[in-house]
Parts: sequence; C-alpha cells; structure tokens
Amino acid sequence: MTVRVGVIGVGVIGREHVLRLARRTVGAQVVAVADADPDRARSVAAEVGAQVYASGAELIDAVDAVVVASWGPTHEEYVVAAIAAGKPVFCEKPLAPTREACDRILDAEVAGGRRLVTVGFMRRHDPQYRAMKEVVVGGAIGAPLLMHAAHRNVSVPSWFTSEMIVTDTAVHDIDVARWMFDEEIVAVTVLTGRVSRKAQPGFRDPQLLILETASGVLVDVEASVNAGFAYDIRGEVVGEDGTVELSESAGAVVKRAGAAHTRVPTEWIERFTPAFDAEFRAWIDVIATGDTHATVGPTAWDGYAATACCEAGLAALRSGTRERVELRPEPELYCTTAHQIPTEGTPR
Amino acid sequence: MTVRVGVIGVGVIGREHVLRLARRTVGAQVVAVADADPDRARSVAAEVGAQVYASGAELIDAVDAVVVASWGPTHEEYVVAAIAAGKPVFCEKPLAPTREACDRILDAEVAGGRRLVTVGFMRRHDPQYRAMKEVVVGGAIGAPLLMHAAHRNVSVPSWFTSEMIVTDTAVHDIDVARWMFDEEIVAVTVLTGRVSRKAQPGFRDPQLLILETASGVLVDVEASVNAGFAYDIRGEVVGEDGTVELSESAGAVVKRAGAAHTRVPTEWIERFTPAFDAEFRAWIDVIATGDTHATVGPTAWDGYAATACCEAGLAALRSGTRERVELRPEPELYCTTAHQIPTEGTPR
Amino acid sequence: MTVRVGVIGVGVIGREHVLRLARRTVGAQVVAVADADPDRARSVAAEVGAQVYASGAELIDAVDAVVVASWGPTHEEYVVAAIAAGKPVFCEKPLAPTREACDRILDAEVAGGRRLVTVGFMRRHDPQYRAMKEVVVGGAIGAPLLMHAAHRNVSVPSWFTSEMIVTDTAVHDIDVARWMFDEEIVAVTVLTGRVSRKAQPGFRDPQLLILETASGVLVDVEASVNAGFAYDIRGEVVGEDGTVELSESAGAVVKRAGAAHTRVPTEWIERFTPAFDAEFRAWIDVIATGDTHATVGPTAWDGYAATACCEAGLAALRSGTRERVELRPEPELYCTTAHQIPTEGTPR
Amino acid sequence: MTVRVGVIGVGVIGREHVLRLARRTVGAQVVAVADADPDRARSVAAEVGAQVYASGAELIDAVDAVVVASWGPTHEEYVVAAIAAGKPVFCEKPLAPTREACDRILDAEVAGGRRLVTVGFMRRHDPQYRAMKEVVVGGAIGAPLLMHAAHRNVSVPSWFTSEMIVTDTAVHDIDVARWMFDEEIVAVTVLTGRVSRKAQPGFRDPQLLILETASGVLVDVEASVNAGFAYDIRGEVVGEDGTVELSESAGAVVKRAGAAHTRVPTEWIERFTPAFDAEFRAWIDVIATGDTHATVGPTAWDGYAATACCEAGLAALRSGTRERVELRPEPELYCTTAHQIPTEGTPR
Repeated sequence: MTVRVGVIGVGVIGREHVLRLARRTVGAQVVAVADADPDRARSVAAEVGAQVYASGAELIDAVDAVVVASWGPTHEEYVVAAIAAGKPVFCEKPLAPTREACDRILDAEVAGGRRLVTVGFMRRHDPQYRAMKEVVVGGAIGAPLLMHAAHRNVSVPSWFTSEMIVTDTAVHDIDVARWMFDEEIVAVTVLTGRVSRKAQPGFRDPQLLILETASGVLVDVEASVNAGFAYDIRGEVVGEDGTVELSESAGAVVKRAGAAHTRVPTEWIERFTPAFDAEFRAWIDVIATGDTHATVGPTAWDGYAATACCEAGLAALRSGTRERVELRPEPELYCTTAHQIPTEGTPR
Repeated sequence: MTVRVGVIGVGVIGREHVLRLARRTVGAQVVAVADADPDRARSVAAEVGAQVYASGAELIDAVDAVVVASWGPTHEEYVVAAIAAGKPVFCEKPLAPTREACDRILDAEVAGGRRLVTVGFMRRHDPQYRAMKEVVVGGAIGAPLLMHAAHRNVSVPSWFTSEMIVTDTAVHDIDVARWMFDEEIVAVTVLTGRVSRKAQPGFRDPQLLILETASGVLVDVEASVNAGFAYDIRGEVVGEDGTVELSESAGAVVKRAGAAHTRVPTEWIERFTPAFDAEFRAWIDVIATGDTHATVGPTAWDGYAATACCEAGLAALRSGTRERVELRPEPELYCTTAHQIPTEGTPR
Repeated sequence: MTVRVGVIGVGVIGREHVLRLARRTVGAQVVAVADADPDRARSVAAEVGAQVYASGAELIDAVDAVVVASWGPTHEEYVVAAIAAGKPVFCEKPLAPTREACDRILDAEVAGGRRLVTVGFMRRHDPQYRAMKEVVVGGAIGAPLLMHAAHRNVSVPSWFTSEMIVTDTAVHDIDVARWMFDEEIVAVTVLTGRVSRKAQPGFRDPQLLILETASGVLVDVEASVNAGFAYDIRGEVVGEDGTVELSESAGAVVKRAGAAHTRVPTEWIERFTPAFDAEFRAWIDVIATGDTHATVGPTAWDGYAATACCEAGLAALRSGTRERVELRPEPELYCTTAHQIPTEGTPR
Repeated sequence: MTVRVGVIGVGVIGREHVLRLARRTVGAQVVAVADADPDRARSVAAEVGAQVYASGAELIDAVDAVVVASWGPTHEEYVVAAIAAGKPVFCEKPLAPTREACDRILDAEVAGGRRLVTVGFMRRHDPQYRAMKEVVVGGAIGAPLLMHAAHRNVSVPSWFTSEMIVTDTAVHDIDVARWMFDEEIVAVTVLTGRVSRKAQPGFRDPQLLILETASGVLVDVEASVNAGFAYDIRGEVVGEDGTVELSESAGAVVKRAGAAHTRVPTEWIERFTPAFDAEFRAWIDVIATGDTHATVGPTAWDGYAATACCEAGLAALRSGTRERVELRPEPELYCTTAHQIPTEGTPR
C-alpha cells in the first residue's frame, strides 16, 4: 500500500520533508503540496510531480496523511483539521506555539479517541541518542542524576529572537530530557551572561537552561545560535554508577601539519539525516499497518508538554529566576502504550 | 518509474538484498525470486510478495533488472544471460571465481557495447571510505605511499577455507585499494604465521597480504576470520604530507567501573548498512534514468581485476612468495567515464 | 643549591608531598617533618631521613622553605609564621577556611613586601589544563563565553559534608575558572536535585555550581563525590569562534567482546601526577633563584579569592539562590607580574 | 647517596641526557663530560657545572656511572672500558653497530659476571607501551598473533641513509617486538615501493619491515623518516580474543572552522619525555641500591639481539627477500631475572 501524503508548508524544512518522503521513503508518495507562497508551492510540487492545493483544508481532503511544516502559529488549524478528517498528521515542532493552542489539539484528538498526531522531534530517531537511551534504560549507569547538553548552531537569520533560542532551539533538548528520563520537566531556569559579538544587538546568546525533572534530575543545556564553527550537538547523562555520552561523529581522521583533524557537521541536515530518514520511514510504516493509532514516537502530549516547558522558559528568560512548568493532567489516551520507534538495521 | 527487480539466489546476503530493495529502496519492486532451494525461494518471495521462478533464465526474461547473489561459480551464467537480454545486472562479489569466467563476461559486455554490470563491492558506497577517498583525491595528504588495512570477522562457518580468506574476505580490501588509488594492483604476497587457536586445524588464519599498485603504493591487509571480538574494519592511507584513517564508529561512550567503553560492531550488516542502502539506491536511480550505461560504481572490469588479484593471492598463499597479477588490456568500454557514485545527503 | 624543606602535616597528601619532594624533585631535601600525630610524623620522617619537630614554629626556624599540609583551620598560623620568618611557604588548599583568616595572611604578606606564599592549586600545572589555557589565550576560539566542567570523585570518607563539596571539591574548579579567564568570579549559585543512593542520608550530592565571572562568562561545574566509577575531570571552554576541551586520557585502547575500552583514572593521584611533579619542580626552582618573590603559580591572593568564592558558594547552598562574591581590593603586591609557571619539556 | 655520572658524547641526545640527569633526576649528579669536539664538551659541561675530560677512559675512572651517547662505532670501546672498571654504563642505542662488536661486549660482561650494561631503548619506559604490554601479558586479548606498528619522523638530516631507517629508526620497533612478546625475532623482510618526494634521490623511504618472532607472530612496521607532518608512533597488537592499541595522545581538543583538532607531537623529545624521565630515574635508582647487577630494562643481550635483527634487516633491504636472524646462544647471565622496570606513580 502506498501512502498518499500532502505537505502543508514547503519552506526549507518542508521541502526537505517533501524530497525525503518522495525519494527516500518506501511506501510514500507526495501527491499534494500547499504553501502560503504559491510560487514556492508550484516549484516544490514540480520537483516530485505533486499537485498544488490552494488551501490546507482542500489538501487534507485529498490525501491519506498530512505533514504540517508551515509557520508555527498555523499548525493548530491544520492539525485539528487533519484530526477532524481522521487522517494521520505529522507536525513539525512546535505542535503549536502556545499551551492553549496545544490544549485544543489535545482536546480534539482525545475527542476522536485515536492518536493521529506525530510531532517532529526527530532526535528520538537518531541512532546516537537511541544508543544513549538504551544505556540509560538498561541500567548500566544506574539511576540518572544529571544531564549535560549543548546545542550549537552556526548562525541564525536576522529575524531570530532571544525567545526563539528557547522555543526553536532548546525545545529539542527539552523533548530529549522528557524522553530520556520518561518523566515530566517541572521547572526551568534560563541564565545568560556574556553575549557573543556575533549576536545582533540586544540578543541574549548563548543561553544556559536548567531543566528539573519530576524526580529531581537536573539538566543543563547550552543553547548557542551563533557558534559559527559547527552544528555541534552534545549530551552526557550522569548516573549513580557511570555516565553515557553522545560520541563525536567522525568520517575520517586526517593527520597533517602537526595535528589530527576530524570534520564536525556544520548543517543540521548533515547531523540528523539518519534521524530524519528513520522518522519518516517509521511514520509511513505505522500508517501502512492501518492500526487505530497512527503515530510513532512523540505524540501530541509530547508536543503539548514541550510547549508548556517553553512557556516556562520564556517566563524564566524574562524573570531571571526559576519558573515552574504547569501541565494539565495527562489524558488517558496517551497513557496506553504508544507505537514504539522501531530499531533500525536490516529492513524487516 | 518503478524498476521491477528479480533476485537470483536468496541465501543470507540475497535475502538481505531482497528486503533492502523491497522495503528501503524507493523506485524498486522485487517481483521475482529464484533459488536452487525452492523452499527458500518460496519463503523469501512470500516476504515481499514476489513470484518464484524455476530458473534464472526465466526470471531474467520477466524483470527490468537482475540481482545475482547465488553461489559464485553460477554468477557467470546469470550475468552473461542478463547482458544478452540487455538488462542491468547487479552481481555480488566475486563477479566470477576465475579470471577466465570474468573474461567471458567482459567479452559479452564489450560485444554488447553497453555497461550493464555492477559488482557488489559496497565499501565504495560507505560514507567513511568515501570521506577517506575524498581526502586522498583532494590532495590534503599528498601523494599516497602506503595503506594499512585490517578486516576482522567474528567467525566463519566450518566450510570456510584458508583460500577463502583471500577470495571472500580480502577481496574487499583488494577492491578498496584499486579504487582508492585509481590504479591496478601488480603483485600480491601473502604471509602467514601463528594461527589462532579458534581456527580449525590446518587453517591459515590470520593472513597478512601485501598488495603493490602500479605506481608502487604498498598496501598491507590483515585478514582475520576468527577474531571473535568484533567485525572490525580499519584503514589508513599514508601520504607524503599526512595520513587519513577510517574513524572508529561509536554510538555512545559509556564510562563505568574505571573505563570508557564504546561498542564495536560484531556483524558486517551492522557496519555496512549505510553502504548497502546507498549502493542499491544508486543502482536503482541509475537504471531509472534510462541511460545507455546502467551501472554505478564497480564495473565488470573491476570485478575482473579483483578476481585476477585473488588468483595471484592464491598462488602467493601456496608459494609463500610474491606473485604478479596478470591482466588483459582494459577494453575501451571501461575507459570512458562511468556513472559516479552520487554523494548522499539531502535526497535530490 | 639544595633547598632544605620542612613539611607540616603529613597525612595522605602531606606524605605524598614529602615523598615527591624527597624522591622526585631535584634540588629539594626534606629535612624536617611535623604533625599533630607524633607517630605519623616519625614514620614519615623515617621514610626520607628527616628530623621530627614538635611544633610547626620550631620546624619553620630550621628550614629554608615550608610546606603546610595540615588541617585547614591551622594553615593561617603556619603560613603567617613562615611569612614572619621570611621563608617561602607552599600551602595546600585552602589557604585558610575563612575570608577573615585569608585577609590576615594577605595583610602579613603585604606588610612584608614580598610574595612568599604559593597555594596548592595544582591544576594550573597540569599539561592538559595548560594546553587548554594556551588555546584560550592564543585566541583560536575567540572571546570566552561559557565553561562546562565536571569533577567526579569515586567516593568520600564518612566525615565529608555537603559543604565540603564546595570547599574541598569545587574549589579546584573555582580556581581554574579564575585562572582560565584571568578575572574574578562575582557570583555563585549552587543547584541540587536528585541525590545519589551512594551518598549518606541528608547529603546533597551531586551539586551543580554556576559561577559568573566579572565579564559575564558563565561556568557550570558538576561536583560529584560518590561517582564510584572514576576520578573523572572534564572541562570545555566555549568561545565566540570555537571550543576547547580537555582530552580524555587513555594509555591503551583494548578491543574485546564487542567493545573498545580505555582506562579512566580512579585516583586523583593518578590523574594529577604530572601536575604535582611540575608544581614542586617549579616551586623549588623559583626558591633556588633567590629572587625577592619566592612564589610560582597561585598566590595568596588566589587563595583568598577562592575562599571568598567558597563562602559565597556555601551561602548559595543554604539559600538556594545566587550569591555575590565579596572581595577586598587587590593589594598592589599581587598586581605586579608573578613568576610564571614554566613550560615543561626538555629540562633547562 | 648521589650517583656521580659521566657522559661521553654530548651531541643532541647526549646533551639531553646531561640536562635530564642533572636537573630532573633525583640522586644523580653529572660531574664529567667528554666529547670528540672539545668546544661542545666545554659548553655542555658549563651548563651543569661538570668537568671536561679529554678522553672517555679518563672520564670512566673519575665517576660512579657512565652514559655513552657518542657515535655508534665508538660505543664498544667505552662500554667495554666501563665493564672493565666495574661501573654501570648506560649506552644509547645501538649497543654497537655490528654483531661482532656486540659479541665482544657480551663476552666482557659475561666474564665479569655482573650485568652492568643498560641499553637506551626508552620505549620500554613509556607509559603507553607499558599499558599495552600489561594488557598483552594480562591475557585480556589472548595469545598474540600479529602486531602493526608505524614509526614516522618529520625529517632526517642529509647524511641519513636508507640503511639507517633500519638501524636507527626501526631498531626501536625491533626492540619493542622482542620485549612485547618476550621472544626472539627469527626473520626480517624489508619491502619498499613508492618513494616520498621529500626523500633524497636514491633514498628508499618509507620502508615496510616484516618481523617474525620465534612463535610466529608477524609484526609489520612502517618506518617513514620524511613524514613531515608529525612524529607519529603507532602500535596495535592483535590477539586471539581482541586487540590493544597505543592511544593517540592529545592535550586539548579544539573545535573550530568545521573541524575538531588535536595536536600530534612533531618532536621525539615531546613524545617520549615521560619515557626518558622514567628511564633515568630507574637507572639511577638501581645503581643507588648497590646490588650486584646495576641494570634496569634492556640489557646487553637486548642490545646484541637488536643489532643482529638490524643486520638481517640490512641484508633484507639489499636482497629484497626474507632473511633469517642469526643469534648466539643466550648466556646464562641474562637468563636470571633482571631488575624490572618499576611502575611509575607515587614516588616510593
């Protein structure tokens, strides 16, 4: 069975998803594209032989499954429409920019009684993060006590704001922390100090976030968006009996001129290609099974909780102090076992 | 366009190829399967909804492209039949076990005037080997002088022979050397010494091969097939101005009990999954373009030259001395630029 | 010229210093030992042929230079006495446990007009920390913005307290931060969360300290004293143009049973042997030169500032909030160029 | 007790030894210096307050122990004279350039009945090689089957010859192999191929040596003396159950401009400073004990065997084939347990 996918929003990441689904994901066909910019929609549609739709609503009608990669504030509308249509929907992060909007998505999904929403926290599909979690869950390092993380971007566009370091950058680390320790984050602190000369005037970069989980695990996250030298993602979990750390990836080690050199990725797409590949493979596969729930990995609840943490983070950025994360009770729908992310390897 | 593929020989590696083509390779459909063992053919065909054919010849008639993964001595028959039928054919290594058989394949392909044969030296598609070659070709380490390589298998079945260490194990390193330095190997020496207690009686394992290229690059290859501890593949090229080395892959670094630990693969399929994925993606893509030549990466000439080196290696294993590699003149057909292996990354 | 050294306090670290001076430091002779425990004094003195003195005061009279390695609260008395006697004195950290006591030491030294006090922050002599600082000072990573550090001890004795994680463990990281960025720390925050099961009841371990330097560099320090698995010291400085990190030391890489293993030190003495060696070589050498100032590396001012930071850290541990560090104005005596720590390598 | 040392030959390495003994080796005093070049002798003697002697013979009379670091062909004379005088003698490699000369040294030492000769194969004191041997001896990787080694020098002076790659460069690897596996080398092959453009006309660089031990362990050694980029020393032992490898040393890891960089030593003195330090500490300590035998680490027998292997290597370089190593029977004197190299760490 081929899953006929429509993609709403085909900017940088949306086009990336279109190409990945069309050219690298067995069982998927991109048949529909919509974008606020009709020229862009036409151009991307032409690359894969898809049809352009004037609106997200029309697109949703015409497809088996929906990818939402439009501007954050528009996510709610499309995700809710997809739920209403009973269609699986993959939503780029954030699920929605406010807790209220996420609330409405949860309400809609709960009312429908089926999990249809998958959120694009692709790190859960990254082989290195998965190896790390396997070690944590396996008990080799004992109960987790701390996590140290760094998230460094080469640079950001001129319209990027200090707040977006929380909501667009650190949000990935927030999701990683919730997933790694399988518990909620209860408080967020954001510290800032010396500002990089590469940051625009008034910009607070880098930021040091401190997340606290329900059981008291402290997670410090360096979020730097003008690091210049690399797209550098680091993580180390400290347990009672040991530590586990993301390895530094390296394709080849070159020794010359008195030093050994290894490449560090400079683009997010280079670093996370295996994660994006696995994410869409898993999503299409779970849809193809035709089960009641058509989601794999991060659910709408995960999207809601991440947005709630970001709201606390924004408050902390303003106040300079620790802010508590407020969460509604977790609906029953999300407490049943979700489709697990499959282990990659030999195709089955 | 979907490429309808038939697979001849569905043992361990053949079934692997069937599943990879069917479930992980966009644009490919496995429609036909043949195997000397009809039960095995039926079982694998059922996994992907393919039809079983009683003979390779019938299968070749029924498909767009052929994968030959049967027992080495049968390769010639199927590859020549595919060429005769004008169909692209992917042949597992070896192209054929003897130089004479490879000769006949070359003759057939040259007579047809189209390159249709691709040989399964998947390392050319491995991201690490490709990064290494990029460094060598880019000139950062100067002209190459030496290469050090190791190829370690956990274990081999009871029917594996000392000769197969040359023809089935080191053959990959032979192809790597030819490809890395873009020149022929002119002589082979095989040294043996102390034998692993894990080897069967009379078995000469490990072996140390010395390859010499036309320009005088010396390549030493450790080939161990009872290494037990890992499937460990190493390589370092030494140039006039520096060195380049395959990095050690590592998903996560665990520190506990006074040591830091990283996983080393134990299965070839784990180590080379990205290479196999890329190999078949590239092959299907090149077929889909409909060009005259339907091969990507290693050609029939590469298969012929590897077999010629292995013959010299077997002579060297017997004689204990350096043996020259005898090659026929390279046919014109292989001197024109081949389809280059595409760079992986964002799907295009 | 041989420097005749007396050591006050010969517990674990004091005895270590006695043996290092006597047996591994050219130009030094340990001629005198004193300890609150006369048996211990006699036993250690016998190891190196030194004489036992009943009191620190008598010992100071009898030697060229003094090492103070007794219990922290006694440091002030011996250091001030050495200053009064005009003798170089090497004082183990802390210089003194309270800012007031350190004040009096500063006053005494300033009154004498000569720098005679060296404090035992040995990391400034560690080859890896020195390589790191060289990179920072050399400008290769641009202006520093952040530092991430971890200080993990295998275990601590039963009398160790939560407060001592600040004053005895993190104090080294405090000195590193001041030295690395060549500026004062202005505020300290101490965060605690989940407690290791290996910690004693009521014990707050691990701790996460946040140090802020005058220019706004944020330094996060994980201090864990029941890490169990290793004596693991980590550090990474993040600058505007790159990062620099302590390498993981490794004597040999062992691959077996599907993994690569490297030793991680479990004892502080193993990790910092080169630092201790270099520290005493440099101290004895500077004394032997006979210059006015007989100190190398960390001065009494560094000892004072570290204690002031620790006091802020203790307040922060109690209050749970950010506490400012209060420092007196830096006396003129410490503003002139100090004896630089020499570069190790070929002996000169 | 202070050991009064005389050093014969104070060129680059001899002066290095003078300074190391005088300034970094507790218990040693350099009191005498001799050199074929009187100006050089005076200049070095002045650095450490030693006296200049006109001849090695006079120097030997005047001291407790002798270091021979003069030109290789003169070693025999001085070593034999030291033995005759009953004085411990540390001889730089080679013990003597010919097997016959080494024979006469062995005869002299055997006649005296005391082991007095230590040969300067400093790698046996290197912490990394020692860690590697500890793993091999400890059995963690099973019985050894192979060793891969590389020895790369940045460059060599104009008077360096192809033969000296065997006798001055690879000789260290020859000693390592004998020591690592605790058995003799029985055959040597030397392969050469493409020559570095940096080598002088007619020079055969790099060389690939194949050593075979009595039990059949094969050791391949890349010896490159115009590597340019680094003084790069590598080693990996392959056993039946795993491998052990020298780690790459790294003081700090710098990430900038899309890559991670670590320094690689460019000078032998940088790479082996800890080994030289330990070597002389151990030698002086063993002399100070006043035992019958005053040697630690490599004995005259080790020096003899290394020279015998080099002779086979030179024959192999000429013949292009495998050459057997001829050894006299090992005298009884060397079969008794030698003074073991002490473990470094806390000074005892």
